[in-house]
Amino acid sequence: MTYCLAVQVKSGLIFVSDSRTNAGVDQVSTFSKMHTFGREGDRQLALLSAGNLATTQGVVAQLQRDIRSNADENLFTVADMNEAGDYIGRLSREQQSKVTGGGATFEASFILGGQVGSEAPGVLRIYPEGNHICATDETPYLQIGESKYGKPILDRIVAPSTSLEQAALCALVSMDSTIRSNVTVGPPIEVLVYRRDTLAAGDYLKLDNDSAYLRDLKRSWEEGLREAFMKLPPINWASAKDRAADSRNIVSL
Amino acid sequence: MTYCLAVQVKSGLIFVSDSRTNAGVDQVSTFSKMHTFGREGDRQLALLSAGNLATTQGVVAQLQRDIRSNADENLFTVADMNEAGDYIGRLSREQQSKVTGGGATFEASFILGGQVGSEAPGVLRIYPEGNHICATDETPYLQIGESKYGKPILDRIVAPSTSLEQAALCALVSMDSTIRSNVTVGPPIEVLVYRRDTLAAGDYLKLDNDSAYLRDLKRSWEEGLREAFMKLPPINWASAKDRAADSRNIVSL
Repeated sequence: MTYCLAVQVKSGLIFVSDSRTNAGVDQVSTFSKMHTFGREGDRQLALLSAGNLATTQGVVAQLQRDIRSNADENLFTVADMNEAGDYIGRLSREQQSKVTGGGATFEASFILGGQVGSEAPGVLRIYPEGNHICATDETPYLQIGESKYGKPILDRIVAPSTSLEQAALCALVSMDSTIRSNVTVGPPIEVLVYRRDTLAAGDYLKLDNDSAYLRDLKRSWEEGLREAFMKLPPINWASAKDRAADSRNIVSL
Repeated sequence: MTYCLAVQVKSGLIFVSDSRTNAGVDQVSTFSKMHTFGREGDRQLALLSAGNLATTQGVVAQLQRDIRSNADENLFTVADMNEAGDYIGRLSREQQSKVTGGGATFEASFILGGQVGSEAPGVLRIYPEGNHICATDETPYLQIGESKYGKPILDRIVAPSTSLEQAALCALVSMDSTIRSNVTVGPPIEVLVYRRDTLAAGDYLKLDNDSAYLRDLKRSWEEGLREAFMKLPPINWASAKDRAADSRNIVSL
């Protein structure tokens, strides 16, 4: 399994990915799921991947080959994020169609984010079928893989006006919640920030399991949650309805 | 869909259930998924249900019929929680086996919690196959239905030493997170508290969508989360690894 997400706020983009892959519970490995492609002053792109590892590695290899061979279409020639999404979707379908058999699935999903020239930065989710959707102000983040555990905190915190720093922290907490609840999502955690209109490689962090920062973050977050609980309005049990009044559901003798 | 959970702490039990059922997106209804069975001074049981509504209603009807007819085995004759779990599991399988056809599934899951006589209080999760597992000190809560969105907060907060009040608040926040992320889980939210060794009906609350308390709870929780975020240790981007040093993943020209 995998958990990757990208957040799109006014001041830029945040990318976070885990690094665990597994084929059954006794074949667990570590692979980076974050790949970047950039040309200073022209464009910066980050690609996060989930799904069949052979497919995602095949797609990334082809993306790199197309750049090196100056193919007519490559990530340095596409005109905008939308065209980049279509191109990666096509490569993904081609990669999947190379293999068949055994009822196995070779599907892969991607998140592509970045900025091309003077276009606004964008984040896309590319489906196994090759099509894609874009993040918007109403839905300022996209996820792939094991997305449910880490979703509530994003829904409660992230908005277009959120600062890049807060968006990065929220994405990290979302990742930590997921790692805690699903053993097939695991460190190192990679974090990348892209600052809008810089067209320069952003800051990048790789947080291992024994990262002191990650430990501090978890401790601080759990303390903060406990404090938040202490401040919640107490339940007014005195206002509790007489359960007998709701007699449909009660049996007592 | 459904989300129900029960939390087992030293001082008692908390039960929380949503009330939304749906058969397709255009057939959404409200049904209580919390049923209680109690005899003051002898035993108190609460049953939460998920899955096929005809099956769960059939099981509850049979439980009530068996009590009224003084059947040899009923919820007022079972010797302990384990026996109660086996009994409900059998009724569930019988109910499911009455219907067949169309590849449809008539499965149901239950959470049963309570206290029988001088036994310790307990919480069980009863599977569609009729068997069950118990909550323990290591895993002091059980969920049925759409369990992922609301799990991280339980994992971070609930322990056997948690107070009943805090456990109830945590269960409510877990429910609220789930309602926010999955439109097939919805209010009214029912909350029941059972205080250990009282063998008396606990306090019960039904919170509608327009409940002022629920609105206050959500607002307070989101404020608390924002405060927790403000206190998180800042990401030290200066320590960011030189991305070029990790050149496997980067293509730049």
